[in-house]
Parts: sequence; C-alpha cells; structure tokens
Amino acid sequence: MTAASSVSVEWIAADWGTSHLRVTAMAAAGPVATAASADGMGRLHPEEFEPALLRLIAPWLTAGVTPVIACGMVGARQGWVEASYRAVPCTPAAMDMLTRAPTQDKRITVHITPGLSQIRPADVMRGEETQVAGALVLNPDYDGVICLPGTHSKWVHVSAGEVVSFQTCMTGELFSLLSQQSVLRHGIAATGFAPEPFDAALSDALSRPEKLAAYLFSLRAEGLLADLPPIAARSRLSGLLIGIELAATKPYWLGQRVTLIGEAALCGFYARALASQGVSVDLLPAGDATLAGLSKLRGVL
Amino acid sequence: MTAASSVSVEWIAADWGTSHLRVTAMAAAGPVATAASADGMGRLHPEEFEPALLRLIAPWLTAGVTPVIACGMVGARQGWVEASYRAVPCTPAAMDMLTRAPTQDKRITVHITPGLSQIRPADVMRGEETQVAGALVLNPDYDGVICLPGTHSKWVHVSAGEVVSFQTCMTGELFSLLSQQSVLRHGIAATGFAPEPFDAALSDALSRPEKLAAYLFSLRAEGLLADLPPIAARSRLSGLLIGIELAATKPYWLGQRVTLIGEAALCGFYARALASQGVSVDLLPAGDATLAGLSKLRGVL
Repeated sequence: MTAASSVSVEWIAADWGTSHLRVTAMAAAGPVATAASADGMGRLHPEEFEPALLRLIAPWLTAGVTPVIACGMVGARQGWVEASYRAVPCTPAAMDMLTRAPTQDKRITVHITPGLSQIRPADVMRGEETQVAGALVLNPDYDGVICLPGTHSKWVHVSAGEVVSFQTCMTGELFSLLSQQSVLRHGIAATGFAPEPFDAALSDALSRPEKLAAYLFSLRAEGLLADLPPIAARSRLSGLLIGIELAATKPYWLGQRVTLIGEAALCGFYARALASQGVSVDLLPAGDATLAGLSKLRGVL
Repeated sequence: MTAASSVSVEWIAADWGTSHLRVTAMAAAGPVATAASADGMGRLHPEEFEPALLRLIAPWLTAGVTPVIACGMVGARQGWVEASYRAVPCTPAAMDMLTRAPTQDKRITVHITPGLSQIRPADVMRGEETQVAGALVLNPDYDGVICLPGTHSKWVHVSAGEVVSFQTCMTGELFSLLSQQSVLRHGIAATGFAPEPFDAALSDALSRPEKLAAYLFSLRAEGLLADLPPIAARSRLSGLLIGIELAATKPYWLGQRVTLIGEAALCGFYARALASQGVSVDLLPAGDATLAGLSKLRGVL
C-alpha cells in the first residue's frame, strides 16, 4: 500500500478493538494507506483515545476536516464514548445512530458505530456488526449464518438484510487462559497444529460435550504420563474448545449456509471442524468485511 | 492449639501444595502445634524448600532427628524432589515408597509421599491420595466414592481399601481464571452466594452441558443489559462449572455413597449440587483427612 500523501484522503476507517487499533486512509477510489498500533481500548483512559488516534493518522490530515468512522470496543462503556446498543432484529449497519466522540483537534470528527444487543438469550456485540454489514455489502442477498471466530466468537443468523439472532462463545478467551495461564500451559506449544489430535478432540467434544471438564485435565495427565507432544496438546485443546462451541451453536450451523469472517488461520480451523460435520463454508477476510461495513456507514455522513 | 515447647515433638506432618505449606507438630498423643505460610511449591526453587520448611518448624526441633512427612505438589517434577507415581488400582497410602528429600540440617529428615497415576483415562493426583488414605483410617470399611473439590477436583472410587479409579476436573482453576481474569470479571463479585442463581445454573449445565460455551458469555451480556447482580453472576458461574463437573463425573456419583473432603464452604456447594440430584453426602474436613493419612505413613518410618 502506498503512502497517502499524493492523493486526497477523504475519510479514515478505524477498527478499534480491545487490544488493537487499525486505521485505513480512504480516498474516493478506495484505501490508500494503513497504520496500526497496540493502543486498544483495554489500555486507554477516555482522554487518551484522541492522542492514540492522532499518532497514527496525523500524516494523512489536511487543513480541512477529515471524518473518522470507528467500530469496535472503542464504543464500550469503558471506551472513548459509549455508543449504545441497537436491539436485534435490525440491520447490522446503523445508518442513523453514529455517536460523536469528543475531540480537541479541529482537523477531525470521530463517529462511533453502535453495537447490537439481544434480550433473550442476553447477548451483545461490538465491531462484528460492522463486519456483518460489510458482508452484506459484498453479497447483498445473503441469507444464512455468519460465524466470526475470535476471542469472543459470534454466530449470526442473517435474513432479508437483518440480523435475526446471534450467539457469543468465549472460545478464544478460554483458549488463551487455558493454554497460557492454567496448569495446562506446562505442556502446550505456543504455536503449531497437528490435524489428527485436533480432529479426535473435536469429535470427542461434539459427541460427549458433557465430558469437557474431564477431557481438559487429561491434556496435563497425558503430558506427564505419556509424553503427549506439546503441539498435539495445543491442537487437542483447540479441537475441544471449538468442539464445545459447535455443540452449543448447532442450531446455527446445522444444515445452514455458513460464511466465516476472521483471521485466516483461525478460520481454517473452523472450516475444518465444520467440514467434519458436513458443512461447507465461504471465507471472507476480516479486513475486507470491516472496510466494506465502515464504507457503507461513510455514505450517511 | 498450644505451643509445642512443653511436650516432645516426635514428628512433623506437612501438607505442601502449589500455593501453601501447612505443618503440624505431632506428639505421641497427637497434634500439639500448627504453622502455615504461603511458601507453596509454585514459588520455590529446589534449594528453597528446606529453608522455607525450617522457617516454620525450627521452634519445634531438638538436638535429635525429627522426621517430616510431606504430601502434595512438593513431590512434583518441579518440586523439591520428584516422588514417582504409583499406578491404580492400589492402596492410597504408599507404605514402602516414601522418597527422601535432600537436606542440609542434621535435625530433620524429610520424606515425601508418592502420587497416584491412572493410565486410561490418563490422570494423576498428588496430595489427595493421602487424604483418601486418611479417610480410610477414619472409616476402614468405606466402599464408595470420595470427592475432593478444589483447584483440580478429584473423584475417587474406593473399594476394598484400594483406589480403583479416579477422575480430575479443573473446576476450581476454571472458576479462578474466568472470575478473575476473563471479561466476566467485570460483573462478578469477589465473594457471596445466592442460592437461586446457583441452582438454576447447575440445572442448566447438567441438563444441557453442550450449551456451556453459550451460557458463559450470557453472564457478561446480562450484566450489561439486565444489571445482573455481581453476587448472582458469581453464583451462576459456580453453578455452571460445578454442573459440568457433575455432568462429566456422573458414573462416579450416580447411585453411589459420596464423601466430600475439602474446604467447608466449597464442600457446601458440592453437597447442595449433589443433593439436587438425590445424592446425600458425608463431609470430612480436609485437615483431619490429611493428618490421619500422614499419621498412617508415619507408622512405617
């Protein structure tokens, strides 16, 4: 991607989550530059958001006013400014409900997208709704399920341009806690993937989800007693946790069309798991979905 | 408990886990003094175990040699000295397999109990075998199941004086990670118990264990959307995790006689959960069980 200096930056797209900030300079023809930092919402006080943003986007600003449209945890209660939730069923993109964040620098205005909420079962999302909106921009007639694997995986039922219902699973966060902070960490590799242990653990968790509490400690015990290789242990933990996620979300994917939006390697694990259950998937890169969703919102400013 | 100075300390019992060290001075007639510190195995290098022990027991030592018998993670590979596992089925107390730890101070000898291992399903324990041995000293003809709730809860099938099989669940560790380090921490009280949310969550987890991944995030969402009280959230998390433990260990407790050994409040939650499934329990304080088990091993020195 080229630097932005040679073309006019009309607006800036910001994907601002708990642990990251990614910005894209947008010209009339599309993206012209990107930048990123680890200044996620989780480490910033409210007054620190504007400086964190300016550190990345200052080179793109002009004498005029450049609007910034941001999605994600930046709009949480602990974020820059709270952007309220919209209750499903509703369209994923909130054409009339962007929340203006307070700013000092006259060269920018900042607009934050609302999240989505569901009363029963209680659930919330922030950021993924913009990716779902982007998926519908790229594929307007989509009717089916969108799965967004991650720290808090989301399963979203989309029909007639609206989010009908959704379900969150804490799969990524459980994987991090168990692999890095629990007793299992002693026997789990930091990277690597072995397909056979993954498949076996996935099958175990899907067919006997009630055994999860027992399966988990077996990773530790087999490491001590049977020299379970650390990459096999990592793959089994991944298979177990994706397996109980699929067990919990069966009404979403069984017999459905599924699109995966997320990081490529992680989506690969979900695609493999779903294929084992006879479900084929389409893949959509997370960055493309986010940018398409924020671009749609840009249309209303 | 009185100080030990007025009577002769014949030996010292040590319960040495990952996060604690508890010692008891034993005279011929029984315990005469206790001491404890946070010098658990998890924070000590091998050369630091003897000084940590001496800091607590020095007032009890005489010119002669006082034996110390220790059980727990002190005998793990990362502990003072590795005490190998004995494979079940076997008696819980290893009358001939204490491992001598290397010591500098001539006034003590230190003997560590072996743990138990199970090949299929792979499982291990360290420390709980001594409590099971103690339970059999206090109730020699016991035939049934012993549950030891904790960081890594153990379910132990005991028959004819032997451990037949056992099963570990990481329930306590999962509760700590989720309530203190995950996104759920924002809405979970540090203490407190509400019976109704506990019972409802227990029932949910037992009847639909495959929904666990979905139930967990609902604690966060209901906190945001419905002001779920933090004590109710804590109780629901406890009910969910004990529920999936009971789902995984049903062959152990269904229609069985169950004895709980552990910390009183935690055993109370397990007793309540088991009662809801028609299982009544006997309670045995953990300290009593450990001391009875170590006393039995003292007999062979």
